Amino acid sequence: MYKTTRAFYIGRFQPYHFGHHAVLSEIAKEFDEIIIGIGSAQCSHEPDNPFTAGERVTMIRHALDDVDIKHFAIPIEDIRRNAVWVSHIISMTPKFDVVYSNNPLVIQLFGEAGIEVRQPPKYKRDIYSGTKIRRRMIEGDGWETCVPDAVVDIIEEIGGVERLRRICMVEE
Amino acid sequence: MYKTTRAFYIGRFQPYHFGHHAVLSEIAKEFDEIIIGIGSAQCSHEPDNPFTAGERVTMIRHALDDVDIKHFAIPIEDIRRNAVWVSHIISMTPKFDVVYSNNPLVIQLFGEAGIEVRQPPKYKRDIYSGTKIRRRMIEGDGWETCVPDAVVDIIEEIGGVERLRRICMVEE
Amino acid sequence: MYKTTRAFYIGRFQPYHFGHHAVLSEIAKEFDEIIIGIGSAQCSHEPDNPFTAGERVTMIRHALDDVDIKHFAIPIEDIRRNAVWVSHIISMTPKFDVVYSNNPLVIQLFGEAGIEVRQPPKYKRDIYSGTKIRRRMIEGDGWETCVPDAVVDIIEEIGGVERLRRICMVEE
Amino acid sequence: MYKTTRAFYIGRFQPYHFGHHAVLSEIAKEFDEIIIGIGSAQCSHEPDNPFTAGERVTMIRHALDDVDIKHFAIPIEDIRRNAVWVSHIISMTPKFDVVYSNNPLVIQLFGEAGIEVRQPPKYKRDIYSGTKIRRRMIEGDGWETCVPDAVVDIIEEIGGVERLRRICMVEE
Amino acid sequence: MYKTTRAFYIGRFQPYHFGHHAVLSEIAKEFDEIIIGIGSAQCSHEPDNPFTAGERVTMIRHALDDVDIKHFAIPIEDIRRNAVWVSHIISMTPKFDVVYSNNPLVIQLFGEAGIEVRQPPKYKRDIYSGTKIRRRMIEGDGWETCVPDAVVDIIEEIGGVERLRRICMVEE
Amino acid sequence: MYKTTRAFYIGRFQPYHFGHHAVLSEIAKEFDEIIIGIGSAQCSHEPDNPFTAGERVTMIRHALDDVDIKHFAIPIEDIRRNAVWVSHIISMTPKFDVVYSNNPLVIQLFGEAGIEVRQPPKYKRDIYSGTKIRRRMIEGDGWETCVPDAVVDIIEEIGGVERLRRICMVEE
Repeated sequence: MYKTTRAFYIGRFQPYHFGHHAVLSEIAKEFDEIIIGIGSAQCSHEPDNPFTAGERVTMIRHALDDVDIKHFAIPIEDIRRNAVWVSHIISMTPKFDVVYSNNPLVIQLFGEAGIEVRQPPKYKRDIYSGTKIRRRMIEGDGWETCVPDAVVDIIEEIGGVERLRRICMVEE
Repeated sequence: MYKTTRAFYIGRFQPYHFGHHAVLSEIAKEFDEIIIGIGSAQCSHEPDNPFTAGERVTMIRHALDDVDIKHFAIPIEDIRRNAVWVSHIISMTPKFDVVYSNNPLVIQLFGEAGIEVRQPPKYKRDIYSGTKIRRRMIEGDGWETCVPDAVVDIIEEIGGVERLRRICMVEE
Repeated sequence: MYKTTRAFYIGRFQPYHFGHHAVLSEIAKEFDEIIIGIGSAQCSHEPDNPFTAGERVTMIRHALDDVDIKHFAIPIEDIRRNAVWVSHIISMTPKFDVVYSNNPLVIQLFGEAGIEVRQPPKYKRDIYSGTKIRRRMIEGDGWETCVPDAVVDIIEEIGGVERLRRICMVEE
Repeated sequence: MYKTTRAFYIGRFQPYHFGHHAVLSEIAKEFDEIIIGIGSAQCSHEPDNPFTAGERVTMIRHALDDVDIKHFAIPIEDIRRNAVWVSHIISMTPKFDVVYSNNPLVIQLFGEAGIEVRQPPKYKRDIYSGTKIRRRMIEGDGWETCVPDAVVDIIEEIGGVERLRRICMVEE
Repeated sequence: MYKTTRAFYIGRFQPYHFGHHAVLSEIAKEFDEIIIGIGSAQCSHEPDNPFTAGERVTMIRHALDDVDIKHFAIPIEDIRRNAVWVSHIISMTPKFDVVYSNNPLVIQLFGEAGIEVRQPPKYKRDIYSGTKIRRRMIEGDGWETCVPDAVVDIIEEIGGVERLRRICMVEE
Repeated sequence: MYKTTRAFYIGRFQPYHFGHHAVLSEIAKEFDEIIIGIGSAQCSHEPDNPFTAGERVTMIRHALDDVDIKHFAIPIEDIRRNAVWVSHIISMTPKFDVVYSNNPLVIQLFGEAGIEVRQPPKYKRDIYSGTKIRRRMIEGDGWETCVPDAVVDIIEEIGGVERLRRICMVEE
């Protein structure tokens, strides 16, 4: 009998960018479905986490609309206890076979739990990194080429650049 | 310009059944997309909440696979403070225009926030109610006809009936 | 040197009524200032806790406006650990000399901490009790005579009776 | 090479009584060491949880002083998410081989995690049950014969019976 | 009919100083009442938050005793989720018309919620800033001239300077 | 009548080392029993907190096996509110007479609560410090001589050095 195969991929997606896009395209070649965990879901309006989970769900969904990747986008709140984090992930998601991550802590935690972890190839991380894209947003330095058009639209609609700039200001 | 319209519908889906299915079909006639909030996402293995959020996501997705309803299934953890609950929902979901609910507290809270709430028609609630279906599971009384086939499959695969029966036992 | 004397009095004030009023008037005869702790501050929109902490602060302040009682009205969130509750109270309030309470748990906890507790005389508890007044609100049975005029005004302004009735409804 | 074998046994121990004692004696025959998890460690001063975790640790330690059972008594705070509870237990305790429990939820959760659970014989549960002993304390009905002498001493020293009676009173 | 106007002003008041005093005096000219939110109410005994919420309530109350500003001093615990923070504030306070703040995050969050925010003039921030006053306390460098006399009294009574110095020490 | 005397000693024990061992030996000369509080019990798999509470309990127990020190090893989760921390400790532990600590915050908090605090002599802190031993583990620089043999065994059995190295890696 045929069984659906699924991979789990987690990130904060602040914002969703072409680096994520490239990894998902790779994973889609090997698995039927991808579960996309949206980490630190409870965070927003912070310099490192400007967007809400809902906004990030919308970005991912729209960005993947015209690509043919069957996926689940699932907000995951932090549980702040590493020893139970894997159980927390498992409880919030459909069953998966493999985890894709380059994050050392994620690799260690799933590894200790006996779950297979694969490291996706890094795709131009000097350009496609959340930190760098947020810095470009603040400086008005061509961030729009780093993310899918659908993400540009959403960020503009919510005034995301203005939000990010404001919350990065220091009260004198 | 055309704008996507979205409705928000929340439930605990313990389990997803034909009552939910009927409501979603109705809503789908009026809105482009439906956001399905899976409430009490952090709960599982309780008599009233036997299934994990991940299991419920899987039920909803599979049940809707062959129906043509564009949707988002989003686990939502309880925040246990009614006064901030609407903000919590909004932060976890894509933007929506209308809420569908028959729950008095949900109606009151969205109402105070100035968001339109519509009450969906009730669909055979004497049969299609979570409480009644869980009781049938415990008693082995033909629960399978109350839920889509995909949901029967998932519950069987995870041993859901045995789980429910066990956690409803009282330690003597 | 003269030292300000203070008493601590805690309640949920759902809503503030003439029973509270009578106790505060008694305490005011013996102490310079009264600290009024508003318990379960994080609760609202529940059958037993319909009003927010902010609404309760407003009730207390307005009800005491024309009485000459120097007081502090301080919202106190539940900490759900009885063993640290007294420390929690102390950290949130100005220093006090005596506690007034008829609640057995409050008496026990402050007693174990070595703090003097006095039991205020009960003032017509068959009429002036939160539970009974909320029931009158639901039934439309003359609740207005049980609370100061200022409280009636506030409850009407926020649609408090409608709120309470709705959240007490059972979803069929 | 010889490896230490360990069993895990969890209870709330409100208070520690001869029923627990009998089970531990049985387990001690089969394992080198017993890990005693003291559940709901954050609770105290409640009708069902009158004693603090520290008081319960002291009861267990003193009661086992003259018995030759090598054990660890470990307070475990509730995590209120069944899906991560087993991981929580594992993170707080030395490694163990087997769980002893008659609680259906505990059996189910460890069972789903693939950990062996054994059900200890029930030892005169009509007499040796926390609920019944607490009722006897309230009614002054010979509770002292249900617990080891060391536990009687501790409860008397902390005024445990008076505490329990007071917190079970209802404020009129 | 005349309606009471209210402004909301939030700070941590570690400690209350003449900078706060100047702003409140300005606001008092335009509004009938001021709601003073005492932020991070659950924090104390930290280098940046040495004083408890109760101590800060006392400072504010005493400092405003001889000034004629009708106010509410309300401890507000952190909720650590920016997306629900405005709802949290609203639930804990009497209704207000305008927010006064120079904090970029506060401005952004109330702005997104459609609530008017005004920026108070900054009053000698090179002198009157919590950070600088705490540093002066540690160094014994004339902090007393930066705060009202009532605040000096309270800090001395609780041994505030010694507390701050100790908790800023580094364990070698 | 003879009364058991007890001292309380708290640390994070990441890992347990000869510095702790020396202090406990000193305390054991003056007290009948030592309560060892294992702080930040909920933390693990972090650069500063690599080991779980259960692993730390095991280290302490085994390291003290051949020394004759009667002790309780009690995991204590952080409560993140300094003002209630002392009550939290007291609720989780058997009664104690004196606290041993060199931590300024611990000294201040117990001091404000009127509990005697003694500062243990520092034992070769240039060598025996958790921070330094973790650094040696990462660098493979002879950490084994800083901890009892039993601790070396446990760390090797759980792959502790590999865990620590991995979680200290930075994702490029």
